[in-house]
Amino acid sequence: MSELRLPELDPTSDRPVFKQIADHLRAAIDRKDLSPGERLPSESQLISHYDVARMTVRHALQILQSEGLTVAEHGKGVFVRSRPPVRRLASDRFARHHREEGKAAFIAEAEGAGVKPSVDSIEITESEPSPDVAAKLNLSGEDRVVVRARRYLLNGHPVETATSYIPASIAKESQIMEPNSGPGGIYARLEELGHRLDHFTEEIRARMPLRDESRALKLAPGVPVFHLVRTAYDQAGRPVEVCDTIMSSDAYVLSYELPAR
Amino acid sequence: MSELRLPELDPTSDRPVFKQIADHLRAAIDRKDLSPGERLPSESQLISHYDVARMTVRHALQILQSEGLTVAEHGKGVFVRSRPPVRRLASDRFARHHREEGKAAFIAEAEGAGVKPSVDSIEITESEPSPDVAAKLNLSGEDRVVVRARRYLLNGHPVETATSYIPASIAKESQIMEPNSGPGGIYARLEELGHRLDHFTEEIRARMPLRDESRALKLAPGVPVFHLVRTAYDQAGRPVEVCDTIMSSDAYVLSYELPAR
Repeated sequence: MSELRLPELDPTSDRPVFKQIADHLRAAIDRKDLSPGERLPSESQLISHYDVARMTVRHALQILQSEGLTVAEHGKGVFVRSRPPVRRLASDRFARHHREEGKAAFIAEAEGAGVKPSVDSIEITESEPSPDVAAKLNLSGEDRVVVRARRYLLNGHPVETATSYIPASIAKESQIMEPNSGPGGIYARLEELGHRLDHFTEEIRARMPLRDESRALKLAPGVPVFHLVRTAYDQAGRPVEVCDTIMSSDAYVLSYELPAR
Repeated sequence: MSELRLPELDPTSDRPVFKQIADHLRAAIDRKDLSPGERLPSESQLISHYDVARMTVRHALQILQSEGLTVAEHGKGVFVRSRPPVRRLASDRFARHHREEGKAAFIAEAEGAGVKPSVDSIEITESEPSPDVAAKLNLSGEDRVVVRARRYLLNGHPVETATSYIPASIAKESQIMEPNSGPGGIYARLEELGHRLDHFTEEIRARMPLRDESRALKLAPGVPVFHLVRTAYDQAGRPVEVCDTIMSSDAYVLSYELPAR
């Protein structure tokens, strides 16, 4: 508390005291008066500074933690998260100009957030689709899919696993079969193959992770995952890819823009 | 198992056995061979039908549960969920034609999903905004906000709490101050007040619920929440509402459509 200056409570405000305290700490984090990785004032210090009950302080700290701004380390105190969520702005993410600049969505986005992206565990196989993937891709009978599974990392920490399913009739003998799918990623390849992309749909669920997912993403206990399924459609209206993604919920804020028309 | 006919495993498939079993059960649920509320075959029945290890069956059942298709009731078995997630299609949700037909988004959507919507606990107050809401609404100094808090229910079960913040300078003396905001909801009122809506942004986080949230939404243990914050912009580019929403993750699939341009 020596260096950090927190304001006093405003007794005339109609904002509850615990929210005012959370506001002060949040503002200190926003201003970088409390830097990533730094320890927050202890409960006792906050109690003495604000002259409030311990429950009030705890409630304030709980808000910050639920917002993903802080992490509590048992016995050590509460720290400013050093891995702030990446804003994943869907409407920009798949912009053609990124593909034309040779950047895949994940790379463009991570660079925007100032974190170092990497990809590992790329596995490419061919198989029959699950009924769900077959339905989403309008496949029937004998149709097979190329499956590209990979894991995405930010600053070396895994944040997302993604599995793409592309009709084998489209992907076969293209660079989509290679671990390095080339500049602009598989969407750039699909466009070169004559499937100029028109739109995507994204379906988002949230749930607790399965054990394998928890391991693959090195999730802390109590951290749910986003389960995001995207389908890419070409300008003829044909679904050309389904991408099934598990994302660490504490690494991402998903962001969308919608018209009001 | 008397009535339910499950196919045999395909020994030539490259799809793992537990996924094949999950596929069969999912297909039976999709076809309504297993209806909402109905009990799935027991582990023992599945083990004997497929001639596989108990862990294989458990892994298959875990997939269905993680997809929100089933619920396990301790000591009673596994049941088809009778409260399937509502698809919340953002690009249609705020369509002007719904407002013009006098329907608020939540009502239009629930009717589309065939469930009975209701709203309770409406509270309308005026207060100073939190720093975060003030920043999102471009408010400064003395500006105040009208706060509309309410809870949404589907078939009598709470699924979402939402708190809207509207600049008091806009909402004051309008029907936005009334518990019943009139046909088309507050967005219709904002448009009548000269703020024709242009677009919305939505930011989605997922996390475990706070205790109050868990109570308000009657969440089962282990069910995370979506924390969705929407900002509405008028055609002059002014933010005119921030809506802060906590949604039960097992009641919703969030769905978005994105252009590929």
